[in-house]
Amino acid sequence: MDIYQLTNKSPSRKDFLDTTDFDQAEILDIVKTAVIVRDYIKSGGTLDTLYHKNLAMLFEQKSTRTRVSFEVAMSQLGGHALNLAPGAIQLGAHETIEDTAQVLGRMCDMIMSRVDRHESILALAKYAKVPVINGMSDYNHPTQEIGDIITILDNLPADRKWNDVKVVFVGDCTQVCASLMMITTKLGMNYVHYGPEGKLLSEEYQKIGRENCEKYGGSVTVTSDREALKGADFVYTDVWYGLYDKETPKEVYMKDFYPTFQVNDDLMNATENENVKFMHCLPANRGEEVTDSVMDGEKSVCFDQAENRLTAQRGLCLYFGGVAQATLDEIKSKKEGNN
Amino acid sequence: MDIYQLTNKSPSRKDFLDTTDFDQAEILDIVKTAVIVRDYIKSGGTLDTLYHKNLAMLFEQKSTRTRVSFEVAMSQLGGHALNLAPGAIQLGAHETIEDTAQVLGRMCDMIMSRVDRHESILALAKYAKVPVINGMSDYNHPTQEIGDIITILDNLPADRKWNDVKVVFVGDCTQVCASLMMITTKLGMNYVHYGPEGKLLSEEYQKIGRENCEKYGGSVTVTSDREALKGADFVYTDVWYGLYDKETPKEVYMKDFYPTFQVNDDLMNATENENVKFMHCLPANRGEEVTDSVMDGEKSVCFDQAENRLTAQRGLCLYFGGVAQATLDEIKSKKEGNN
Amino acid sequence: MDIYQLTNKSPSRKDFLDTTDFDQAEILDIVKTAVIVRDYIKSGGTLDTLYHKNLAMLFEQKSTRTRVSFEVAMSQLGGHALNLAPGAIQLGAHETIEDTAQVLGRMCDMIMSRVDRHESILALAKYAKVPVINGMSDYNHPTQEIGDIITILDNLPADRKWNDVKVVFVGDCTQVCASLMMITTKLGMNYVHYGPEGKLLSEEYQKIGRENCEKYGGSVTVTSDREALKGADFVYTDVWYGLYDKETPKEVYMKDFYPTFQVNDDLMNATENENVKFMHCLPANRGEEVTDSVMDGEKSVCFDQAENRLTAQRGLCLYFGGVAQATLDEIKSKKEGNN
Repeated sequence: MDIYQLTNKSPSRKDFLDTTDFDQAEILDIVKTAVIVRDYIKSGGTLDTLYHKNLAMLFEQKSTRTRVSFEVAMSQLGGHALNLAPGAIQLGAHETIEDTAQVLGRMCDMIMSRVDRHESILALAKYAKVPVINGMSDYNHPTQEIGDIITILDNLPADRKWNDVKVVFVGDCTQVCASLMMITTKLGMNYVHYGPEGKLLSEEYQKIGRENCEKYGGSVTVTSDREALKGADFVYTDVWYGLYDKETPKEVYMKDFYPTFQVNDDLMNATENENVKFMHCLPANRGEEVTDSVMDGEKSVCFDQAENRLTAQRGLCLYFGGVAQATLDEIKSKKEGNN
Repeated sequence: MDIYQLTNKSPSRKDFLDTTDFDQAEILDIVKTAVIVRDYIKSGGTLDTLYHKNLAMLFEQKSTRTRVSFEVAMSQLGGHALNLAPGAIQLGAHETIEDTAQVLGRMCDMIMSRVDRHESILALAKYAKVPVINGMSDYNHPTQEIGDIITILDNLPADRKWNDVKVVFVGDCTQVCASLMMITTKLGMNYVHYGPEGKLLSEEYQKIGRENCEKYGGSVTVTSDREALKGADFVYTDVWYGLYDKETPKEVYMKDFYPTFQVNDDLMNATENENVKFMHCLPANRGEEVTDSVMDGEKSVCFDQAENRLTAQRGLCLYFGGVAQATLDEIKSKKEGNN
Repeated sequence: MDIYQLTNKSPSRKDFLDTTDFDQAEILDIVKTAVIVRDYIKSGGTLDTLYHKNLAMLFEQKSTRTRVSFEVAMSQLGGHALNLAPGAIQLGAHETIEDTAQVLGRMCDMIMSRVDRHESILALAKYAKVPVINGMSDYNHPTQEIGDIITILDNLPADRKWNDVKVVFVGDCTQVCASLMMITTKLGMNYVHYGPEGKLLSEEYQKIGRENCEKYGGSVTVTSDREALKGADFVYTDVWYGLYDKETPKEVYMKDFYPTFQVNDDLMNATENENVKFMHCLPANRGEEVTDSVMDGEKSVCFDQAENRLTAQRGLCLYFGGVAQATLDEIKSKKEGNN
């Protein structure tokens, strides 16, 4: 695999709304772009590929990691990100989403949005003439997927191909739980959702994973059986309180998940894999879904994973900014120029 | 007219608060600056004229178009805009407006503000030593005027000089309604406000328009007579609910305006002009002051108009940033360099 | 003293939390860096020393001067500042401060924070791997100290060495009152807090000042005796209403301070120094702790002082960004290149 050569010259779709819209080769192109640029910047290189380009970041929900990572990504690529915080623009309130999309698309070069409802991101993409990136909806979290898969590839066991890897998500069927299934099966990995009855991934979601497995290999297992942890290379968890307007009170969710589905040393040991890694999309509710001992322990890669949000956003901004192959050529020539 | 030569080398006033403060030649200089830079950027050119310059954007009211257009404008000119959102600084609350103006003027190179009361923008301009731009007050909306007049000039009927053009504003006497009168009569156009009794432009506003007509030709008509639509080249409307603390409940304003003053196909046909264009400052309340059919129809230029907010802000930032002629010379030489 | 040569090549600590952590030579290095860069920029020079570097600004409390000065500073140095406004991230709410620090430190190059509690800034510094700057806590306001000492040095009486200078703070023992003591005594100046009983600097604070005096000369006087104003070179005041959740109602604080501790012409005359200067950290409550006559009078340097917040932030971003000596060398060579 020539890491300096992308499979496709340009994305098959204008927008990044759902990894299911892309085939494995395209996802790998995004990943490659992101990793090449990360390594280049880490080695002291600077880029101005998105010079004078402006990304509108439109948040219907608060965000720390998504907002900071996109804003820094644009800055590091020579561009600028506008933070339209919750309340700054109310989608569908003073004007239709369609009009907002048209106007932002006339002024900005790209739009990223965190929306309450998945239909909103679809509408933004339909009516804006510029690329739209889904910064999380109630359905999925595809930019998280790119950062997560980079973290998994960074931590691949030395003796494994990626399609031998086993990734176990523990706990509630959040968007991150679903998104992790989408991206791991897209790469042919073995995915498990281990959680309590009634909190497991829906049939609708599982179908997407199974369709990936038919194309790329791998497997989807959704279960309440602790045996499923055995052999895990990665254990991943997320908060238990749900999201948005569906937030659950603590006494309810603790009864559902605690203590069985807490990622603690016992649960990590149940993988029977000394080299297992711990992942979390953050923010974490320490003492609930994960213990300090695991999160701050040597198996934890959750802060590398947070840093890879930035890695992913740079790759996405470049790839959907339509400059991917050119960028790689530019970086390549700069590197050669340095020798 | 040599489009690369401005009439005046520098603005006669430090601040852009009201187009009435400027004569026609100066307004045309701003327009020329804006259009030249727009064309240059659209052709792939980049500018750094406001490199390391900082614009403080101070909002007492929420804004989408004004905020995004200024922030992108500064970014595209190599500078930066600080978003001081509503609540971030309360003018006159923890300190006097005069002190805020002095402090911002010491740290930033320009100030743009959307204020509750026109007196606030006057005070900011008086006490800040740097240029102050009025991003809308309860009295007027002069940056909108520049974008609107550019849109009108872009869509001038082939057989017309601009002083033959007829522009009809339909509906409520908002700041945009008044501002449209100020800028169209400044260029000697024929302006009509067609609205219900009690919602028509005040004598005070009309006087400004008539004074423009004395200098530059053109006319001001304020009427409830539908005949006034006849021969319109542009039909323009705005929301009916008023603004700020003067917002009107829906049942009240619908009685005042609906259905007579809704811009629908019937109203557009009443112009008896096949080439009439539809304008709206946005946001639009579709189904109230305008129908989908008109807004999304081929006569609508309202999204081009939104894009020209950005065109206008670049021109204003350059012109009041004191670099207008120099910029044009720079662009001219770059263009020649490209040949 | 070679102003182009810093005493130390790099800061002894990663973070700027408290000037007490640094010795006099280091504080002077920060001051020199700030002043050299100010003069360079004022003379028309531009810098890109922090090109593509990102500062996260994390506010638990509203801020005008601190926010604007850091954001402009980063822009003028070629970098970018992210404004995480109050409510955007709630320290310790959805995740621990420690986790927030780790994540921001992975994505950004520096963190500046205004915190409710001093322990929060200590925790941010401990867990973030990047430099952390204290943008004010309930304990101190060290970035204000740097701007203030620059203003004092700018206005040093012609016949005085800095260790002969007398600085009198009038009024409430705010963080700024305490911080002014810390920085003036660090430079060996004579510091007085003149205020009512019960509102004077605590023993704990005074101890810090006296320890400075042992090392660097100077004196600390805390008194309700008006005689202490005599011979003051600088009179400094701050608001009376307290800060944060400890705000005092007006009827209470007016009884405590008014009219005795109002800085008016009478009080200024009590210094018996014609060349005395007036300082205020702003915002000011005109008519309470200071009169218009003093604030707008010729003895007032409070707006120069506000501008020096920007001077200070540039110096701090450079010094703690690890580029201080290199920067000075760069500026030096640019200046020489200009000749």
